[in-house]
Parts: sequence; structure tokens; C-alpha cells
Amino acid sequence: MKAFYGDLKLGILGGGQLGRMLIQESINFNISSFVLDPDSNAPCKDLCEKFVHGSLTDYDAVYNFGKELDILTIEIEKVNVDALEQLEKEGVKVYPQSNVIRLIQDKGTQKQFFKDNNIPTAAFQLFGNKEELLSANIPFPYIQKLRRDGYDGRGVTTIKSVDDLQKAFNEPSLIEELIPFEKELAVIVARNENGEVKTFPCVEMEFNPEANLVEFLISPSTLDSEILQRADQLAVKVAEDLKIVGILAVELFLTRDGEILVNEIAPRPHNSGHQSIEGNYTSQYEQLLRAIFNLPLGDTRTISNAVMINLLGEKGFEGAAKYEGLNEALALDGIYLHLYGKKITKPFRKMGHVTILDDDRQKAIDKARFVQNTIKVKS
Amino acid sequence: MKAFYGDLKLGILGGGQLGRMLIQESINFNISSFVLDPDSNAPCKDLCEKFVHGSLTDYDAVYNFGKELDILTIEIEKVNVDALEQLEKEGVKVYPQSNVIRLIQDKGTQKQFFKDNNIPTAAFQLFGNKEELLSANIPFPYIQKLRRDGYDGRGVTTIKSVDDLQKAFNEPSLIEELIPFEKELAVIVARNENGEVKTFPCVEMEFNPEANLVEFLISPSTLDSEILQRADQLAVKVAEDLKIVGILAVELFLTRDGEILVNEIAPRPHNSGHQSIEGNYTSQYEQLLRAIFNLPLGDTRTISNAVMINLLGEKGFEGAAKYEGLNEALALDGIYLHLYGKKITKPFRKMGHVTILDDDRQKAIDKARFVQNTIKVKS
Repeated sequence: MKAFYGDLKLGILGGGQLGRMLIQESINFNISSFVLDPDSNAPCKDLCEKFVHGSLTDYDAVYNFGKELDILTIEIEKVNVDALEQLEKEGVKVYPQSNVIRLIQDKGTQKQFFKDNNIPTAAFQLFGNKEELLSANIPFPYIQKLRRDGYDGRGVTTIKSVDDLQKAFNEPSLIEELIPFEKELAVIVARNENGEVKTFPCVEMEFNPEANLVEFLISPSTLDSEILQRADQLAVKVAEDLKIVGILAVELFLTRDGEILVNEIAPRPHNSGHQSIEGNYTSQYEQLLRAIFNLPLGDTRTISNAVMINLLGEKGFEGAAKYEGLNEALALDGIYLHLYGKKITKPFRKMGHVTILDDDRQKAIDKARFVQNTIKVKS
Repeated sequence: MKAFYGDLKLGILGGGQLGRMLIQESINFNISSFVLDPDSNAPCKDLCEKFVHGSLTDYDAVYNFGKELDILTIEIEKVNVDALEQLEKEGVKVYPQSNVIRLIQDKGTQKQFFKDNNIPTAAFQLFGNKEELLSANIPFPYIQKLRRDGYDGRGVTTIKSVDDLQKAFNEPSLIEELIPFEKELAVIVARNENGEVKTFPCVEMEFNPEANLVEFLISPSTLDSEILQRADQLAVKVAEDLKIVGILAVELFLTRDGEILVNEIAPRPHNSGHQSIEGNYTSQYEQLLRAIFNLPLGDTRTISNAVMINLLGEKGFEGAAKYEGLNEALALDGIYLHLYGKKITKPFRKMGHVTILDDDRQKAIDKARFVQNTIKVKS
């Protein structure tokens, strides 16, 4: 590997909050960051050596952005993979690799990959359009997910009855059995260029059903160690089957029968790993840098019980963001505020997150509830 | 207080590593940073909303930089205080206040302040030039410090005999009794606009005698609780006597007689607080932001035993920096690398630091020694 400083240029496709937190960590490693994003006010704009305003899905924009850089990574899957493949051919390191991004971009091929590799997952079928779906007469209830471009809860709908069919998507989609799960879990796993693999301790998630977003995350999970071990092994298997270089968030269901199923995977920093910044010895962001720069992977042990909540734009408010309740919330011990630098709030937009550390798990949960009721993002 | 995002512009006088770590934290609070520094390649250059290349000691440069901003702070004391005083009159918040910076800039007035406020400190005398010093015939040994512009070990010399007098400074200086101390300690204390005061747990320092720099810092100190309590109370007294808004590093000597003396103070983030980034619930950088934005001060408890070492440019090397041994060092558990983004290394230049967390204090020390012997900054 070349010397660190000034020699290695890291390109990040996407300049949102994940890129922002990655840059905060890159600074510690003297890694110069270059960012491409279609939003000229993206959260990373003022924090990188060079910010390029351009489309992530346009071949030329991605190719031209990447060709002068040493390593490229992503903070969103929806990027032009053909350009990445060409850049790989020309010697740019693309981590996660273009074939991994291509596979994961399409929830259909992602599910097929699980099936082909004996990775337990909910039963599924693929459809090209709404007409095909209707003629298949699948028993209710089920979940319909767009194969492409779903993000942050968009592109997913639950079909419980004939009435719901009117909202069914007409694009290529994946139909999944609705799993009556006990818990939603996540394991973040990292794999570096040498093939070293390390997992973070499994976390438990609670969703906001209305926004369909992770809203409340508890680290580490206190489920039975046998269950946690299976979750951990499954995450390792997925990372090794993919041969990913980078980090992979593996979202899991624990079913009422005690089975663990892989729900979805994301080959990048993930909402379910934000608490690692303060709650684990190594954060998911540092781990990603270590993986793609082929450094030894960091110590993933938890430092303390941690609870993370997303700060979502309040319903009914759209416009220049104002933050209420920060003074009251910041008076708590063990609270960490992360605002994402977004000028405009919208209902359910991710505007920031808060992590609470407390050795006492219940106190951490209680404090997180207080923060959730106290900090409001309005306009 | 106004809403956070986009409304408040923080100006930082100085764009070195302290400003860099302050910016890393400001990002979490949606605070836009503006930086003034005379080095066009300063470590903060690419990490702020606006980087202004200019002199910190020039009235117009500081005044013009500050006049459009809401809050100004410093990462170095050597700034034009007249400009800051004028900005205060025009309604810009300058924290620490210009009168505090002015007092501390001059080690003579700093010592006089200690004396006037019954703050225990080593006996001292002030001299205008070398001739005055020589004619005073002060018994050896003693320390001579330049009243102004000493920094990072520069401007301090020990006079042990007549022979040493040839290296005595000819500028206005402070002569101090050479205290045969047992330990060198530091307490960082914060005070916000409301007058709330909080200290960090006391740390112990070890110096590199050749470079006269803190090289090895252990947090928290394991000295007797009675001693630690006195150190803590002394730091609070200094902050309250100064009425500082911001943070203050209070460097202390524990003498062989068990007395605690204030050595020097610095009204800004300090080398003796770097370990707080990972080793305490709140870092000195976050605490500074909380103090100057008048938020409740953060929880300063230690998370774990921590040892911090500076990464200094290796003797005999000057030029584009290369880092040896990073792979070996980063394989340790609980290690945190902070490189400062400086392109050029010089002997003893502060190029970065490493913090080690380990619940076992001795293991933390052993790991720090390993890192010190392993990471080398060469050219």
C-alpha cells in the first residue's frame, strides 16, 4: 500500500449523511475525500477536498468523477454500475465491487443470490408488472417491493386484501411472504482486501410503522447467545459468499419459530450501525475505511449499552429546518447529537440521529424515549 | 438562542490540528465553520465552509474575517486581540473573550493574575531584556520563558549555570523558580455563558525532555483523591476568576511536598485533552462548542483508562510525510489514530496522535509504548 497522506484519494458516490460521517472519520486517517452528489447542497458539500455536483446514475458523470481517484466507495446503492465496472478495468479500486453493487441494487437478484447460496430468507416470487402479479392470485397478506430504487421505506407496500391491490406497483417487483417476526435484528460485517472478516455485535431494531424507517435501535441485542451466534454466522456467510470488500449491513428477522432469515442487505454504512460511533470501540465508518484501505479490521466490541434514534422531520412541516428541545436533551448524560446538515426538513426526512450511552440498558431506553419526545425538527 | 442550522457561523482563528478536531465535532451540531490561517495548506483547509488565507496577528485580517460571523473562537493564543476587542464592541461573540486572550498571551500578566488571585504558582520575576536579567544575578537553576509567542516548547529555556546564560533570551521574559516536581498534571475546565462550570478528570503527563512536548498522557490520574480534588478545585477557581466562556487547560505541578502549583493555562483545546475524544463521554472539542453556544455542559466522566501519545516528526527527516508502522499499530484493540493532515514533516513536528483505550491501565500504557516504537513519521 502507498503511504497515506496525500497519496490516496477516496471518492464517495453520494454526499448525504452516511458520506458525511464517513468523512468525519476519514479525517483521522489523512484520507482526502472527493464527493459526487446530485444535490448542490448535499451534507458533504463543505467537508471534502472536492465536491462534484452531478448525477450518480449517469455513466459519464460517474466515470469522469472516478477516473482520477484511487479508491471509490458508495453511500447509496443507486449508482451507475457500468461506469464503475469500466473504472475497475482501468485500475481504480471500487469497493464494494461493482458486481456486488449490481447484485444488491436489484432486490430480485439479491433474493435469488440468497436462494442460490442456501441463505435462509422469506419465500418470494418475481413479477414484471402489476398484470402478472394480479393473474398469479397470491394469497394475502404479502409484501410487494420494487426490484429497483427503493430507499428509506419508499418502494415497499403491504398488500393485505383485494382493496390494497389498487396501490400495488406496476414496475418489476418482488413479492415476499409476510413474516410474522418476533424481532428485527441487524449485524454489520466487514471484509477487507486480505479476506479478514469481522462482525459487529448484533443489534435490535424498532421501526416507525408509519414512516417504515428504523427509529429506535438497541445495541447490543440481549437475545439468547445461541440466536446471536447464528445471526453472526449468517452475516459472515453472506459477506464471504459475496466476497465483498467493504462493509455489509445484514438485516435479519427472528421469526416466532426461532428461525433467522435474511431480510435485506446493504453494502455500505447503514442506519443500523450509527450507534457504533460511540457505542463500539470501532465505528462502522472507521471499519469501512480499514476494509477498503486493507488495514487490519478494528475492534468491534461494544463499549456500553447504546440506544439510537433517528431525528425525523416532524409531520406537517416542510421548509428551513429548526430544532426544538436541543437544550433539554443535551442536558442528559451520555447523549450524542448528530445533525446531518440538511437545510430543508420534510415529514419523516432523516435530519439527524441521537445516540445514548448508558451502562444500564433500561435507563438508556428511557433517555432515548425522552429525547424522542423532546427534540422536534420543524420549519 | 437562534435555531441551529445555517443561522450560526463559527469562526476559528487558526486552522491547525485543534481547529481540525473542533470542526470534526462541529459537524455533529450543524455548525458551519469559517477558518483563518496563514498557511494555505493548513489542516482545516478542505473541511470548512470557507477558508481564509491570512495572518492571525494582523488587525485587518482578523477584523475582516470576523465581522460577518456570529461567534469567534481560537485554537492558538497568538492572534490580534485589538481586532477581537473591536468585534466584541460590534456585537460578535468572541469566546474566549478578548480580555482573557490578552491576559494569557503574555506569560507575565498571566503569572501576575495568578499572584493577584492567590492562585498557587512558582515564584517569578519579570525582565525586559537579557541585560536586566544578567544584572539581577538570580541563583541557578531557573527557567526563562519568553513573555510572548512561545508555543509547543519554543521560547522556553532552562538556565542551570553561567554557561547557559549565552542562550538566554534578550526579549521580555519571565524567570521562574525551577520546581522539582513529582508529577505534571492537567485539568481541563469549561464554563458556558450561563456560568455553568465543569471539569474533566485530572490527567497525568509525561514530557519528551528533548522536544519539551507532552508525549505521553495518562487518563485519569490515579493519584490520591485528596490531591485530585485540590487540582480540580484549583482549575474551577482559575476559570471562575477569569470568567472565561469556553474551555481552559490548566497545567499543574504536583511538587515533592505535595503542593499543587499552576504552571500555565491555555484558553482553548489542548494537547492534554486529546484523549477525551474517545476516553471521556464528552470530548474537549464538544465541550468547547457547548460552552460557547451556551448549551448545557456535557458529561465529562471517563469511559475507560486512556493513554495518548503524540506522533512527532522523526529526527533527521524533513519533507513530504510518510507513515511507517500503521498496519502493525492498527492491529491493536482499542487504538485510535488521528493524523493531522500535514503534508510536510519536520523533527518533532506534531503530525498526529494516537489514543489507546484499555480497561487495564498497565495494558494501555504497554500498548502506547508499542505504538510509540512502531509508528514513525519520516520523509
